[in-house]
Amino acid sequence: MTPATFLSENFLLEHESAERLYHEYAKEMPILDYHSHLSPALIAEDHRFANLTEVWLREDHYKWRAMRANGVPEYYCTGNASDYEKFLKWAETVPKLLRNPLFHWTHMELQRPFGVTDRLLGPETAADIWETCNARLALPEFSCRGLLRYYNVVLVCTTDDPTDDLQAHRKIAQDSDFPVQVLPTFRPDRAMLLQHPERFHVWVDKLSEASGVEVKDYATLIEALRKRHDYFHEHGCRLSDHGIEQFFADDYEEADLNRIFREVYNNQGVTVVDRAKFNSAVLHESAVMNYEKGWSQQYHVGALRNVNTKMFEILGPDTGFDAITDANLARNMTRFLDRLERQGKLARTIVYNLNPAVNETAASILACYQDGSEPAKMQFGAAWWFLDQRDGILRQLETLSNFGLLSRFVGMLTDSRSFLSFTRHEYFRRILCNLLGGEMDRGLLPKDYALVGSVVRDICYNNAARYFGFRAPIAGAPATGETK
Amino acid sequence: MTPATFLSENFLLEHESAERLYHEYAKEMPILDYHSHLSPALIAEDHRFANLTEVWLREDHYKWRAMRANGVPEYYCTGNASDYEKFLKWAETVPKLLRNPLFHWTHMELQRPFGVTDRLLGPETAADIWETCNARLALPEFSCRGLLRYYNVVLVCTTDDPTDDLQAHRKIAQDSDFPVQVLPTFRPDRAMLLQHPERFHVWVDKLSEASGVEVKDYATLIEALRKRHDYFHEHGCRLSDHGIEQFFADDYEEADLNRIFREVYNNQGVTVVDRAKFNSAVLHESAVMNYEKGWSQQYHVGALRNVNTKMFEILGPDTGFDAITDANLARNMTRFLDRLERQGKLARTIVYNLNPAVNETAASILACYQDGSEPAKMQFGAAWWFLDQRDGILRQLETLSNFGLLSRFVGMLTDSRSFLSFTRHEYFRRILCNLLGGEMDRGLLPKDYALVGSVVRDICYNNAARYFGFRAPIAGAPATGETK
Amino acid sequence: MTPATFLSENFLLEHESAERLYHEYAKEMPILDYHSHLSPALIAEDHRFANLTEVWLREDHYKWRAMRANGVPEYYCTGNASDYEKFLKWAETVPKLLRNPLFHWTHMELQRPFGVTDRLLGPETAADIWETCNARLALPEFSCRGLLRYYNVVLVCTTDDPTDDLQAHRKIAQDSDFPVQVLPTFRPDRAMLLQHPERFHVWVDKLSEASGVEVKDYATLIEALRKRHDYFHEHGCRLSDHGIEQFFADDYEEADLNRIFREVYNNQGVTVVDRAKFNSAVLHESAVMNYEKGWSQQYHVGALRNVNTKMFEILGPDTGFDAITDANLARNMTRFLDRLERQGKLARTIVYNLNPAVNETAASILACYQDGSEPAKMQFGAAWWFLDQRDGILRQLETLSNFGLLSRFVGMLTDSRSFLSFTRHEYFRRILCNLLGGEMDRGLLPKDYALVGSVVRDICYNNAARYFGFRAPIAGAPATGETK
Repeated sequence: MTPATFLSENFLLEHESAERLYHEYAKEMPILDYHSHLSPALIAEDHRFANLTEVWLREDHYKWRAMRANGVPEYYCTGNASDYEKFLKWAETVPKLLRNPLFHWTHMELQRPFGVTDRLLGPETAADIWETCNARLALPEFSCRGLLRYYNVVLVCTTDDPTDDLQAHRKIAQDSDFPVQVLPTFRPDRAMLLQHPERFHVWVDKLSEASGVEVKDYATLIEALRKRHDYFHEHGCRLSDHGIEQFFADDYEEADLNRIFREVYNNQGVTVVDRAKFNSAVLHESAVMNYEKGWSQQYHVGALRNVNTKMFEILGPDTGFDAITDANLARNMTRFLDRLERQGKLARTIVYNLNPAVNETAASILACYQDGSEPAKMQFGAAWWFLDQRDGILRQLETLSNFGLLSRFVGMLTDSRSFLSFTRHEYFRRILCNLLGGEMDRGLLPKDYALVGSVVRDICYNNAARYFGFRAPIAGAPATGETK
Repeated sequence: MTPATFLSENFLLEHESAERLYHEYAKEMPILDYHSHLSPALIAEDHRFANLTEVWLREDHYKWRAMRANGVPEYYCTGNASDYEKFLKWAETVPKLLRNPLFHWTHMELQRPFGVTDRLLGPETAADIWETCNARLALPEFSCRGLLRYYNVVLVCTTDDPTDDLQAHRKIAQDSDFPVQVLPTFRPDRAMLLQHPERFHVWVDKLSEASGVEVKDYATLIEALRKRHDYFHEHGCRLSDHGIEQFFADDYEEADLNRIFREVYNNQGVTVVDRAKFNSAVLHESAVMNYEKGWSQQYHVGALRNVNTKMFEILGPDTGFDAITDANLARNMTRFLDRLERQGKLARTIVYNLNPAVNETAASILACYQDGSEPAKMQFGAAWWFLDQRDGILRQLETLSNFGLLSRFVGMLTDSRSFLSFTRHEYFRRILCNLLGGEMDRGLLPKDYALVGSVVRDICYNNAARYFGFRAPIAGAPATGETK
Repeated sequence: MTPATFLSENFLLEHESAERLYHEYAKEMPILDYHSHLSPALIAEDHRFANLTEVWLREDHYKWRAMRANGVPEYYCTGNASDYEKFLKWAETVPKLLRNPLFHWTHMELQRPFGVTDRLLGPETAADIWETCNARLALPEFSCRGLLRYYNVVLVCTTDDPTDDLQAHRKIAQDSDFPVQVLPTFRPDRAMLLQHPERFHVWVDKLSEASGVEVKDYATLIEALRKRHDYFHEHGCRLSDHGIEQFFADDYEEADLNRIFREVYNNQGVTVVDRAKFNSAVLHESAVMNYEKGWSQQYHVGALRNVNTKMFEILGPDTGFDAITDANLARNMTRFLDRLERQGKLARTIVYNLNPAVNETAASILACYQDGSEPAKMQFGAAWWFLDQRDGILRQLETLSNFGLLSRFVGMLTDSRSFLSFTRHEYFRRILCNLLGGEMDRGLLPKDYALVGSVVRDICYNNAARYFGFRAPIAGAPATGETK
């Protein structure tokens, strides 16, 4: 047993059984990344990155947040500084990130794929690392497709607006030389964007065009969405996604919805009550579509977005000014799910919860809608965004274990715009194996590698391969008694 | 020191001091199970169980939830499948329960009392375990009374409706050969069942009959409850219990209460506001009764019940479709307790909190009503229901330690319908000893076995024996400086 | 490596690297206690304590709470019992405090400064400890100033009402023989005391006198506060503090504020809505003052005070009857900070959060206002009050690490009325070093003492020395790459 030192082969594996679980069961499993924000266009054109700043910093609001917190001016985050200047500011920040997940991620990504293993990133090593990595990025195997192959990705889902023509996905699918499946995810969030009437208006017109349905009220909005839902289905989509601060589950009547639509479309304001009604309807009808096509649906719940108005007006959304809500979850979440269940229209559902204080509430609610039709139809999703770090991952695993079936968990995903983020699967797998292996060594679990190892393989990949209905082969030796 | 392997003698005891605390202090302590849902009728008739499904699965919505989550159809949970078919489906589910508390509980219960220690339950071992255990269940020492004796139970409290005639309790008490005290607990929840007017009406009529008071308004309702409170007291009851989603502590006037009573009794609807008023009054008056008789009162707070309407209509309550609320607790909890304290009518109180996110809030509030009249009059109750697992137990112990006096804790209870659940006391004791022993070995606590061992004994049994005012002897060597 | 036994040299240091971090980096660092409730008058007069009860129990509602919970009547807590009787009751309580932070604090304080290391406090050792400690307290080095020197304090901030004349601070500053800086903190909480109109009236009149401004409406109230803000600044104050159950961030108009002022000042009632408006204005304007003078501002959020009306009427506030709120935080906190940010008036800010359930919410919100102008302008403050214990400290460190920059943390403070509480810095430092050293030994952090040791030094002292703009020298060897 070699010691678990920083970034060593046994990094994060503190127990003998943990090592064995990771190296014999987890490591070899392929990646099925069922939720990402990768650009299908970059994959279609097999983009190559000019330098480390492009691949690492350009769209990464996690890193911008860390830099701002370290006193780095905006000029070096999102501003006009040169790529190298930006990189240097990032390199200055890294040594200040001890115990922040970015400290682990950064050095894991330098290790894989770049092969930088003998030093930490910091002001002294920045120039050298910049050159080393940029030289690698110039190689063909570091293109977008090269990176997907490197990480052993068999399937990746992007996240797409209903108005998207999915041309990039078609192009990738037609290229029989490229073995990675790249499938779209239907994300109709903009149909609920009532608080921004102008953006809503523009999007509705785009939807009319894409769907061939003239969207002029609530009913035609749903009709158009359904057309696009069909279109996505034809392109292999089996998954929707919804990013919401909270579930919407108010009562509503169609006449109201049409009135609200017109008011917003005509750039009048919208009240909080009307918005909740409208969103309740859209969220419900989208869920019904998912059920009817046998899709799975994802809900990312609990982000409080754009809380810094000044910066929102300068930079727009997704630039690092979001937080975790502490709004109550249970009432609306149960109303939303219960209504679907009563109608017999509740699809396979994954809820990703951003506020760890309601982990137990969310997981206990999901368990109330497991209906015996298939294993773990309702999934308490992986630790997400701010919680995608060691503590957050462990708490999600603990909650899921206590309130549901860890062994049926569909596992990790990147949720990332970056082609380097697949290391997060490795990070997650090491943490998972350390948890289970530690408990084997401490006598909390039976020391039965066949049993525990099969659970590891299932969580790393096989559960996802079974759950979503993609064409993805089962990997590794079959799990004990596993026949589904 | 033998290693702490799965289900070994030192299961869960990872430190030398932990072993010593458990084996020398905890293990020998009797059980005073002050809150259970055991059937007094089954004890009175000394019922024997036909098979493992009857004793294990028939009323166990924990297991049904796990089976549904594993994709087992309702037919095998609550439906018409045969007992053996149901058991097989459970056996298939168990290997999928790694890290779920049911995995530990199941194997601990097979170990004690059934003596099955050499294999895990699963599809391959199911038939053999079925036969082995059923053969044991046929023996006299596996009757209800036999099991109580086996687990060294000295006293158990059942949970009873005010209309109960307590005949079973009387019968048990009159049998001088049976040494276990079986006492009732007064649980007047149905007096707050306004959301179900028909059920409320039926229950009120039953209460009229049981009490000899014609219940026709709020005042007579309280009068009738008080009669039954007296009756329970005469039968040895010293404890009430209340299952509430949240505390009710609104202001109210008697005229309103009478009107609300009549409206509900006559099957008219009730508003949320009226219901809260009425429940505030009933909860307050019940608490006053408890104070006046020197009883202790228990509040189980935080369950969000019956959130799956479809299944509720098919199966009714307590079938596995409940969750954890995240409704705010502090405002009403302080108002409820403060009103009683102002009137000098606050009885010994135990609050069991189901939402771990408000553990600290609840424990810090309880500490504000410790009045110096006796040790730990206000108790932050044991980890309950969904939280009755290793993580939940540890968090309850951590909160209690930091916000109150762990050493004065009245300890564990089963809260169960099952005669096999007494192993949860063993589970709790091992976790407690591992926590304290680990901290002794790590230097966080003094390595003073007399001191820490006496705390262990007190929590396992003696504190409860002192707190409730039952006739229960103190056990083990006296704790250092313990004179109360 | 000597074992980490209870109160040994390596107490709480369970790893080799932890020992080294503590003994080589943390221990020698001076103390900059930027938030305390010490009495400047006692320092000015260099008060000596008559006995252990005066210095330990007289103002310590933490201990009173523990005694009440242990069944000790009020007579021995805040009542007329003699000092020795009170001490004996405390000594009886201590052995019952296993795992409560008071058990650690008590014995650490007996160890340092009193040198009592060979026994635990309890009924048997009480008389002897009483005499030993009282004899020490009679020595000149145990005076208030002596204790500050003993603990290596270089600077301490007291907490002061705007009406305070700061005479004691002036007297201390003029004494060139006393090297410890004692600076005031501006705490204008009474300007928001609308729920107690009589106390508000008295305080307003006092403010008029102190400021020379006749306070007769909202505008003159702010004018007077600004005068006192100036006055505090002249006396070296660079820090404000605000104790609030939640942030106030409603909209308001000046006409309303003047009306509300008059109504309260004239002893009429105030509605919840009006109170929130008024407090929103006062809180905002105070923050603007802080920004304009380059101060730092502290918000202590989440205490639910005086929930036991009966005891409040007997003993008044700050006597041990406060709890942790679970009211929602995010909405008002973001509104409050966003309004200041939009106006370009957001000062350096520390938020201390009392409800651990919203740790992640609070820390994620603060990160949205890091503006790149300086390192860690927004600080997620140290574990506070009820959370100032091992679990609470670890959770604060974990949250800060994951959501911000631990390395930039301004670290610990006593928040205490007691001259013995400086041991809490030692407690915190040991916990911090154990966390970081443990992670070095487990390979979660690089085994780089220069890097991790400099973080330790920064958190223990240097970050605070840099952050607040006091005249306080940097201590220890310079941190790697540290130039700010």
